[in-house]
Amino acid sequence: MSVSDPGNRPDEMPEAPIVGAPAAVTPPAESGERRSPAPAVAAALAAGDRARAIELSVHLHAADLADLLQELSTEDRQTLIGLLRERFDPDTLVYLNETVREEVLARLGSAEVAAAVSALDSDDAVDLVGELEPDARAAIMARLAPSDRAILETALSYPEESAGRLMQREVVTVPPHWRVGDAIDYMRARAEHLPRDFYEIHVVDEQRRPVAVVPLSRLMRNRRLTPLTEVMQRKMRLISVTADQEEVAYQFRQYGLVSAPVVDAEGRLLGAITVDDVVEVIQEEAEEDVLRLSGVREDDFYAAVVDTTRARFSWLFINLLTAILASIVIGFFEGVIEKVVALAVLMPIVASMGGNAGTQTLAVAVRALAVKELTATNAARIIVKETIVGGINGFLFAILMGLAAWAWFGAPVLGGLIASAMIINLLAAGCCGVLIPVVLDRFGVDPAVGSAVVLTTVTDVVGFMAFLGLASLVLL
Amino acid sequence: MSVSDPGNRPDEMPEAPIVGAPAAVTPPAESGERRSPAPAVAAALAAGDRARAIELSVHLHAADLADLLQELSTEDRQTLIGLLRERFDPDTLVYLNETVREEVLARLGSAEVAAAVSALDSDDAVDLVGELEPDARAAIMARLAPSDRAILETALSYPEESAGRLMQREVVTVPPHWRVGDAIDYMRARAEHLPRDFYEIHVVDEQRRPVAVVPLSRLMRNRRLTPLTEVMQRKMRLISVTADQEEVAYQFRQYGLVSAPVVDAEGRLLGAITVDDVVEVIQEEAEEDVLRLSGVREDDFYAAVVDTTRARFSWLFINLLTAILASIVIGFFEGVIEKVVALAVLMPIVASMGGNAGTQTLAVAVRALAVKELTATNAARIIVKETIVGGINGFLFAILMGLAAWAWFGAPVLGGLIASAMIINLLAAGCCGVLIPVVLDRFGVDPAVGSAVVLTTVTDVVGFMAFLGLASLVLL
Repeated sequence: MSVSDPGNRPDEMPEAPIVGAPAAVTPPAESGERRSPAPAVAAALAAGDRARAIELSVHLHAADLADLLQELSTEDRQTLIGLLRERFDPDTLVYLNETVREEVLARLGSAEVAAAVSALDSDDAVDLVGELEPDARAAIMARLAPSDRAILETALSYPEESAGRLMQREVVTVPPHWRVGDAIDYMRARAEHLPRDFYEIHVVDEQRRPVAVVPLSRLMRNRRLTPLTEVMQRKMRLISVTADQEEVAYQFRQYGLVSAPVVDAEGRLLGAITVDDVVEVIQEEAEEDVLRLSGVREDDFYAAVVDTTRARFSWLFINLLTAILASIVIGFFEGVIEKVVALAVLMPIVASMGGNAGTQTLAVAVRALAVKELTATNAARIIVKETIVGGINGFLFAILMGLAAWAWFGAPVLGGLIASAMIINLLAAGCCGVLIPVVLDRFGVDPAVGSAVVLTTVTDVVGFMAFLGLASLVLL
Repeated sequence: MSVSDPGNRPDEMPEAPIVGAPAAVTPPAESGERRSPAPAVAAALAAGDRARAIELSVHLHAADLADLLQELSTEDRQTLIGLLRERFDPDTLVYLNETVREEVLARLGSAEVAAAVSALDSDDAVDLVGELEPDARAAIMARLAPSDRAILETALSYPEESAGRLMQREVVTVPPHWRVGDAIDYMRARAEHLPRDFYEIHVVDEQRRPVAVVPLSRLMRNRRLTPLTEVMQRKMRLISVTADQEEVAYQFRQYGLVSAPVVDAEGRLLGAITVDDVVEVIQEEAEEDVLRLSGVREDDFYAAVVDTTRARFSWLFINLLTAILASIVIGFFEGVIEKVVALAVLMPIVASMGGNAGTQTLAVAVRALAVKELTATNAARIIVKETIVGGINGFLFAILMGLAAWAWFGAPVLGGLIASAMIINLLAAGCCGVLIPVVLDRFGVDPAVGSAVVLTTVTDVVGFMAFLGLASLVLL
């Protein structure tokens, strides 16, 4: 882990394909099509051509090597890591999916992992070690140099997914009475101890509390004698070290921040978070919502069959209970179904339309809650709006489906029944599509997790109840 | 539009709440709870207290004022903009949702909008003008200074959602034979013409083709006499000016980029994209998937009732057709339902479990496709895995639901029927949950848009067919 990078490393990445060399400028492909080396590597491994497999993978960017490892089957992955072992780029670990990473770490063994951790930037090392199981973590920590271990231990003392885990601890601080030239001289003199890359310096008072930041571009364009107070930017959004990463991402997105100082409870500067640290968080948070809305608790794309099955089972089990509930509702009306079997044919349409209309509303509401557009101020207005939208679409589909049912079974009464039930269920779907996530959010439950199952229960029960209940009144 | 910002503006934001002042350090709240000024502003407007409404909103950060405007009802919004008119911060427009922005622009009128566009940074101005209707755009363009208009016209000549729209056109370029001191002197001399904030300078050859970049932090820590060739970073990922923003976001995320040079077809430097320009894109792309998977074509949170209803109708209409298809399948088996009405009670359970299991798989597959983890290399393996997961869960739920149905209706044959149908449908759900998005993607259809409706059609039809078909064989 290189806390103080010696700097002056013209190229940080391995030397192989110089994309930007003046003679051979090759802009990246326009489209998303990318030739993955995975099929060729898999073929080479299958043919036992180790030299070819190494040749194809050893010069890859760490991110692309991570992708390659993920695309390969477990067996091929293990073989390739064995082949690359001595030349394995530690940065690859940073880019790997959690499940695959565990597998790779196990294959590498703790001596090699400890060496990799030492080679990583401190924030990447924290990330990697933070996700290990307690046993594995202890094994790695024991093999680290005491200074590295101390840094990791401090970082890991902040809660998971907090600003403390995201921040870079290495920041350049200067006192407010300096001039531009003082700051530049100071950085030149301390070149060995500066972070590898940084975009601004922090002006702090005697208690190390942030006073202002000076973007490097402002230092650059001003004369050496200009006082820092004339070029510094006093407006900052401080981030508490214990703030949740979701809150950090919100701040960066809301205010278009490029970087923000991180402070402790006394307001003293502990580090800084830059926007590139937050990109991953923003993407993760948005992805989580996609998965949770569909009943997947966490991304299990690379997980083993048993783990995936177990994770999915509990959600399906809850769904089974709600499906049984809907069936019990149907059971109340066995008599009328026995008499008019066409009801059994038509009833899933009412439930399905309610479910789909509700899901549309739900997705919009969950997203709006996540980005804090749906608030206490406008919740009532949005519920009314969505109920009206549901009502109008309910009315339109009532006409369509009413006529269709009449034509299909030649019974106008069936058309009237399904039309009435359609309006009732789409009104319920629009209203509950906002109401359910808002209420869950108010009670501190992640609306992306619980909303869908509650909503489909409502639309199923209301749909069957309205359609079959009205049918009982009219037909029995 | 300030292409060349004079720099030296110590504070970019209005003076009001100095978050970072040494005496009053107030770290942001830990949680997502934020007091929105919206209720107080709405109350002031309702009470006709204009002074109070202005007082509450005039000192807000542009991003917070945008939120406030979004939270207010249309009427209050119009009133508030009328009150703030002369003191309206143009940056607010950048943060507004598209629908609300159009409303605000209409209320402001083209003279005021043209003034706002002139005051914005060039990339924000491009963003704003690029989203206007042709008529509105022409009206604004006609009122701009010729130099501003020319810049906007060039930027708008790049396709929407392309790198050309995202990039900053103002970059600092230097020749490769310079020393660190030359670059610093050059920037000091040209202070007036430098972009407001930048993080690196670009080394280009005589044809203005990128050779390398030099992060400002590297300029800072090296002696004036050090040649740039010793500190520059030759590894760059060039971005074509016509590349889609999704591709740009992918590059930034995949390789953890902080900035990338943008080049034309001849490889000449046109501008640069920094990670903060990409954050919004990453979030948008992820959000789009959440909404599309649920049948919402675009975010209509702030759209009028009529627009929202129309947008949702088409998706619901397609769903109606698939629901009718499922009903036709049920219709084939009216005979057996008439004989054993319990079948009508139980059949939605089979369809519902299939739909939910399939949706879980689908969400994982769509996400994996979006981040390019699901590829031609591993598609077959993932389909097999998900089919096995579906099969195992199918088997488990077959036992559970088989016993439940037996107990409920006292008929072991019903238990056997629902158990068999459950296994068949969950196998189909697992397999099709991956297969459908992969096939749509292969044919160039956005898998987030079409997958869900195809999938639920499959799980409904297979579910009803398996359950009722087996019942016909056994019971008739």
